[in-house]
Amino acid sequence: MMSKPLQLHEDRLLPADPGIRSIARALYAEVAGLPIISPHGHTDPEWFAENQPFGNATELLLHPDHYLFRMLYSQGIALERLGIGQSDADPRESWKLLAENYHLFRGTPSRIWLDWVFAEAFGFEVTLDASTADLYFDTITEKLQQADFRPRALFDRYGLEVLATTESPLDTLEHHAKIRDSDWNGRVITAYRPDPVVDPEFEGFADNLARFGEITGEDTMSWSGYLAAHRNRREFFARSGATSTDHGHPTAATANLSPAEAQSLFDRVKKGGASASDAELFRGQMLTEMAAMSLEDGLVMQIHPGSFRNHNLQLFEQFGRDKGADIPTRTDYVQALKPLLDRFGNNADLSIILFTLDESSYARELAPLAGHYPCLKLGPAWWFHDSPEGMRRFRLMTTETAGFYNTVGFNDDTRAFLSIPARHDVARRIDCGFLAQLVAEHRLEDWEAAELARDLAYNLAKKAYRL
Amino acid sequence: MMSKPLQLHEDRLLPADPGIRSIARALYAEVAGLPIISPHGHTDPEWFAENQPFGNATELLLHPDHYLFRMLYSQGIALERLGIGQSDADPRESWKLLAENYHLFRGTPSRIWLDWVFAEAFGFEVTLDASTADLYFDTITEKLQQADFRPRALFDRYGLEVLATTESPLDTLEHHAKIRDSDWNGRVITAYRPDPVVDPEFEGFADNLARFGEITGEDTMSWSGYLAAHRNRREFFARSGATSTDHGHPTAATANLSPAEAQSLFDRVKKGGASASDAELFRGQMLTEMAAMSLEDGLVMQIHPGSFRNHNLQLFEQFGRDKGADIPTRTDYVQALKPLLDRFGNNADLSIILFTLDESSYARELAPLAGHYPCLKLGPAWWFHDSPEGMRRFRLMTTETAGFYNTVGFNDDTRAFLSIPARHDVARRIDCGFLAQLVAEHRLEDWEAAELARDLAYNLAKKAYRL
Amino acid sequence: MMSKPLQLHEDRLLPADPGIRSIARALYAEVAGLPIISPHGHTDPEWFAENQPFGNATELLLHPDHYLFRMLYSQGIALERLGIGQSDADPRESWKLLAENYHLFRGTPSRIWLDWVFAEAFGFEVTLDASTADLYFDTITEKLQQADFRPRALFDRYGLEVLATTESPLDTLEHHAKIRDSDWNGRVITAYRPDPVVDPEFEGFADNLARFGEITGEDTMSWSGYLAAHRNRREFFARSGATSTDHGHPTAATANLSPAEAQSLFDRVKKGGASASDAELFRGQMLTEMAAMSLEDGLVMQIHPGSFRNHNLQLFEQFGRDKGADIPTRTDYVQALKPLLDRFGNNADLSIILFTLDESSYARELAPLAGHYPCLKLGPAWWFHDSPEGMRRFRLMTTETAGFYNTVGFNDDTRAFLSIPARHDVARRIDCGFLAQLVAEHRLEDWEAAELARDLAYNLAKKAYRL
Repeated sequence: MMSKPLQLHEDRLLPADPGIRSIARALYAEVAGLPIISPHGHTDPEWFAENQPFGNATELLLHPDHYLFRMLYSQGIALERLGIGQSDADPRESWKLLAENYHLFRGTPSRIWLDWVFAEAFGFEVTLDASTADLYFDTITEKLQQADFRPRALFDRYGLEVLATTESPLDTLEHHAKIRDSDWNGRVITAYRPDPVVDPEFEGFADNLARFGEITGEDTMSWSGYLAAHRNRREFFARSGATSTDHGHPTAATANLSPAEAQSLFDRVKKGGASASDAELFRGQMLTEMAAMSLEDGLVMQIHPGSFRNHNLQLFEQFGRDKGADIPTRTDYVQALKPLLDRFGNNADLSIILFTLDESSYARELAPLAGHYPCLKLGPAWWFHDSPEGMRRFRLMTTETAGFYNTVGFNDDTRAFLSIPARHDVARRIDCGFLAQLVAEHRLEDWEAAELARDLAYNLAKKAYRL
Repeated sequence: MMSKPLQLHEDRLLPADPGIRSIARALYAEVAGLPIISPHGHTDPEWFAENQPFGNATELLLHPDHYLFRMLYSQGIALERLGIGQSDADPRESWKLLAENYHLFRGTPSRIWLDWVFAEAFGFEVTLDASTADLYFDTITEKLQQADFRPRALFDRYGLEVLATTESPLDTLEHHAKIRDSDWNGRVITAYRPDPVVDPEFEGFADNLARFGEITGEDTMSWSGYLAAHRNRREFFARSGATSTDHGHPTAATANLSPAEAQSLFDRVKKGGASASDAELFRGQMLTEMAAMSLEDGLVMQIHPGSFRNHNLQLFEQFGRDKGADIPTRTDYVQALKPLLDRFGNNADLSIILFTLDESSYARELAPLAGHYPCLKLGPAWWFHDSPEGMRRFRLMTTETAGFYNTVGFNDDTRAFLSIPARHDVARRIDCGFLAQLVAEHRLEDWEAAELARDLAYNLAKKAYRL
Repeated sequence: MMSKPLQLHEDRLLPADPGIRSIARALYAEVAGLPIISPHGHTDPEWFAENQPFGNATELLLHPDHYLFRMLYSQGIALERLGIGQSDADPRESWKLLAENYHLFRGTPSRIWLDWVFAEAFGFEVTLDASTADLYFDTITEKLQQADFRPRALFDRYGLEVLATTESPLDTLEHHAKIRDSDWNGRVITAYRPDPVVDPEFEGFADNLARFGEITGEDTMSWSGYLAAHRNRREFFARSGATSTDHGHPTAATANLSPAEAQSLFDRVKKGGASASDAELFRGQMLTEMAAMSLEDGLVMQIHPGSFRNHNLQLFEQFGRDKGADIPTRTDYVQALKPLLDRFGNNADLSIILFTLDESSYARELAPLAGHYPCLKLGPAWWFHDSPEGMRRFRLMTTETAGFYNTVGFNDDTRAFLSIPARHDVARRIDCGFLAQLVAEHRLEDWEAAELARDLAYNLAKKAYRL
C-alpha cells in the first residue's frame, strides 16, 4: 500500500457550484483569520495552568476523543486495545489501530478535523494509513516535546481570544487561578456546571451535597441553605471569570413549584435514592431556580438536553462515563420549558441558550420559541450535529423563523484541544457557504452577507456569552 | 449610515446553478402572470365591503403581521412600543423600530415579502433602514390615500381571481353580502371556521353555543339541535360563497362515537368547564361529524392541527390571542385520523385537506396517507414553513410518495393583504425551481414540468377547493 | 394526444452541477455493470423454480406492485377495476387505467422504475399514456411469451449474483429445493421470516403454532419446545441457503425476560387472543431470543419496524394484507433496543441490521447507535424512502456519525421482479452523486470515492449478509 498525498484544499467545504463558491470564498477570506471565541467546551484547565507537554500522539488525539474510539469500537475493536480505561495498551499499538482503520472516518467530521490537525498543526504531507502509522506517531510525539507545541503556545498560535472550560461547583478552580496569576495572557475561563449537585441521579449525589456544604459553608441539607450554596458558588465562579452556567439534563423539563413544594421535594431527594419522577422534577425545578439566579448575577444559562447518557450498560460498568455510548433521544421543548417561561420568559435581561440533539425540533419548536421569547437564543448544531451537514441543516431549519440574530455563533464543545481551530474553521466555511447561497439566489445582498459572516464567526458568540 | 439600493432581482429565489436556473426561468415565465387563487386566508372582508383607504404604513404592514412583531419582540422590543394591544404608540415611532431592526429579518420570508411590497407596490428604490424610516412612512401613508391603493383597486391590480376569508358560524357575513351586492366584481368568499362553537376550550364556549342557537333558531343545548345548527349555518355559508370549512385544532385527533355516546359527551361539555380529555374527544368527534356533513353539502374540509396556541401566558393575559406566541408541537396523524378514516376514508366524494406544522410527518405520515386514501389531500407548507426552504422541504418530502396530484397548490393563509401576491410569487418561483431540478436530473420531461408548473400555480387550488 | 418519445438519459439522477456530474459519471461508470446482490426482497421463488412465462403486462407490472395501485386508489380508482382482489377485471382495461393516469407518478420512484423497465427491458421508444396503452399491453404480453423473457433468463440477463426471497417457517421451501436441484445456476436463497409464529396478533397465530409443531416435530405448546422448533427451522433454512432472518414488527421494542417470565408469557399468548401489551412484549422477547440463536447459527438479523399494517380497515376486510394501506409511524430505537443491547450489544459476532420508516431517527438515533454498538449496522433507505431523495437523505443524515462502513449497501425489498435492476441502478446513481459531491467539496479524495462506490454498490451487501 502506497500512502497518498495529504493536502487541505483551500476551497474545502465551500459549495461546489462555481458561482456560489466564488461568493463564499470572498466571504470566508474576511473571517478566516478572526480570533476564536470558544465559549463552551471541555478542555482541561490544568493544561494551561501547568503548560506541560502533551505526552504522545495517542494521548493527545485518540484518548480524549470519544468520536474516534466509538467508531473504532462500532467495528469490533476492543476499547482496551485503544488504551481506554484501566488499559496498559502500548500507545503506539493503539495509534496503529486508528491508522489502519482511518477509512472508517470517510465522510465524517472527525476525518476533517484530524486532517486539519495533521496538515496544519504537524505539517504532514501524506495521509494517515497503516504504512504511515509509525511516521505519524513518531513525528507527533517528537513535536509535542517542542516549546511551540506546549498548550499555551498552541493557544496563542491558533488565535484563541477566550476559551471556556466547564467545572462542577465542587471544583476548586485552582487551575484557573494559577492561569490568572501567571504571566501568560491567555483568557481561560470556567462555566458553572452544577449537574453533580443538581441531578439526584448523578453518581454520589448525596455525598456531593455534603461536599457542597463544606466548600460553601452553607447548610446544604436545607432547601434555603442549598440555594444559598449555589449563589455562593456562582459568585465564586463569576469572580473566576465565568459568564455562563451549563445544564446537561436528560430532558428540557422545567418546573415552577411553590417554595413549600420545592422544599418538600428537596427533602425527598437530598439523601439519594430519589424516584425517577422526583429526580426529573427536581432537575426541572432547579432550571427555574438557576434562571432566577441568572437574573441576579447575570450569568448566561445554557441548556443541553436530550442525551441518554451511558446507554451501554456493560461499557459503563467497565469503563465509566463518556465513552461514546451517549445516544440522543426525542426531545420536547414546547411543554417542557413552559413552567420556566411562564415565570421568566418575557424578561429580556435573562439569556437562555438552548441546544438540541433532536433536529426535528429545529424548525418545529426551537426556531418558533427563540423567534418569540426575549430570553431565548439558539445554540449551534451540537455534538453529533457539529458537522458540515449538521450545520447546514441548522441554518436551513432555523433561519427562516428565528433569523440569524437569535443564534449565538459557534461552540466547539470539545475536549480534543487541537480540534478547536479545525472546528471553528469548518463552521466559518459552512456559514459562508450558506450565506453565499442566499446571495446567489438574491435573498440577501452581498454587503449584508459580509456583515453576517463576521457576526456568525465572532460577534454573536461574544455578545451572547457576555464576553 | 447610507441606505442601499433596493431592487428585486428577476431571478430571485430560482436555483443558483446556471443550467437549472435557465430551465426554472422558462417555467416561471409561463406562470408568473396567472391569476391568483387564494382559497385560505384571514384578511378582513370589511376592507373590500367598505373600500376605505388603509390608514398608514404601520397599520397596513406592521399591526396585522405577527411574523413581524414576534421577531421584534424576541429581541426585547416591547409590544406596546409597536402599537400592539391597548397602546397609544405613535405609528411613526413604531415604524421606526421596524426600520432600525430590519436586519433581524435577513434570511426570513418576511424580508422577501416586505421587499416585494416596498419595491413592487410602492416603488421604493432604497432599502428600509433607520435613515429611510421617515421616507418610507410618509410615502406609504400618502399613497394609501390614493384611489389606486384602496382595497378593491389593489385586489384587481394583483390579479386575485378569488380570495377566501375565514369566519365563525356566529358571524353575520354582512361584509360578504355587501360585496356581492356592490357593483364591484371581485370574488371574496368566506370559509366556515366553527372553532368557537366546536372547541369546548375556546374563550366563551358556552355563550357561543347560546348565540349559535339564537342565530340558527335551533336548540343548541341538545345534541341533535346542535348538529342541525351546524347544517343550517353551513348552508348559509355555502350560499354566501363558501366552498370549504376550516378546523384549527390542537391535534389531529378524530373520534367515531355512537350517537348515544356523542350525545352524552355533548351534555358534559355544553355548559363550559369541560375536562381536557372531554374537550379533546369532543373536538375529535366534531371532525367526524363535519366530514359527514361535507358528504352532504360538498364543502371541502381543511384540518390545521398542531399549534400550541397562546403559549406565552403573560402575553395572552395582557394582549389576547394571535400575538405571535403560538408554537408548533409534534403531531401524530396515523392514529389520530383513524376513527374518521375508518368511517369515511374510502369515500372519494369527501375531500379533506391536511396541513401540518411538524415537518417530520411529511414523508413519514402525510404523504403515505394522502398517497393511499381517496379522501385525503395535502395542503401546502404552512405558517412557519410558508417560506422558500419550507416549500422546498415540502416538495422534497412529499412528492416521491404522494406525487404532485395529491397536493392542492398554494395557500397564503395571511391577514397581511399586500403580502398575498408576494407570497404567491415566492411559491411559484420555488415550485418552478423544484421542477427545474427534476428536469435537469432527467427525472421529468420539460413538457411535463410546464404542465405541472401551471397545475401547482393555478389549477390544483381551483380544483381542490371546488372553485 | 400525441405520445412523446421515451428515452433514458445517460446522466439521469446524477447531480445537475456540471462539475459534480462529471465526477459522478466517472464513479458510476465503474459500478454500473457490477453484479447485483439482492439480499432482501419478496419475489416469488416459484417463478425461478418453474420458469413459466409471466402472464401479461398487468400481471407482471401492476398486480404485484402496491406502489402503483395505492396511488391510483388515492385518486379514486376502485381496486376492483385494477384487478386487485377477487376481481375479474379485464387485464387490458386495468392496464389502460394505469396508462391514462401515468401522470400521477411524475416525481415518484415508480415512474423511474417503470420507465427503465419499458425502455430497457421491453425496448419502448414512446411514453406510456392513453394513446399507447394497447401498444404497451400487446407488446409486453407478447414478449413475455419469448424464451428470453422467462424468469431465469431475466435473472441472468440482469446480472443477479444472488437473490434472497423471504419465507415463513411454515413454508416447505420446495421451490428453493427445485431451483437448487435444477441445472440452472442462479442463486436464489431464502430468509427466515418468523412473524406468523412470533407475532401473537398475526392472523391464525394459534393455528400457525400447531403447524409449526407438526413441521418440526417439536412440542410448540411448551416454551422450550417452541424455541427448539425455531432452532430446528432456522437450521433447515440455513441449509437451504438462508444467511439472514427478517422481523417485521410494529415497533422496535425488545425485552429481556428471565426464562421463567418468558415461559409464563408464552403460556399466556400461545392460544391466541393475547392482550396488546402481551403481544408486544412477546414480540420483543422473541427478538432477543432470535439474537441469541443468531449467535449460535450465524444468521444475520434484520429488524424492519415502524409500519402500521393494514391501516385501512374496510380495505383489509375486503382485500386482505399488503394492499398499499400500511402507514409508517414514529419509531423509537433508543429505549426500545436497550434490553437486547444490554444482553448482546457488545458482541461483535452478532450482526443486526436496522431499518426505519421514520427518517427523524436517522441522525438522532440510528447513526449514533450504529456508530457505537459492534452488533449494529444500518439498512438502506427503506420502502417509501427507497427513492432518489430518500436515499440522499439517508446518506446525508447517517454518514457523518455512522460513516459508510456501518451501512450495508442497497436492498430492493420488492416483489416487482423487473424493478430490481432498475432499483439497484437508481441506488448506484444516487450514491455516486453523493460521493461526487463530497469530492467536489474536497471532503473526500477521488480514489476514496472510487473505493466507496464499489463498496456501496457491491462489497458491503455481500459482507454484511455473509453471502
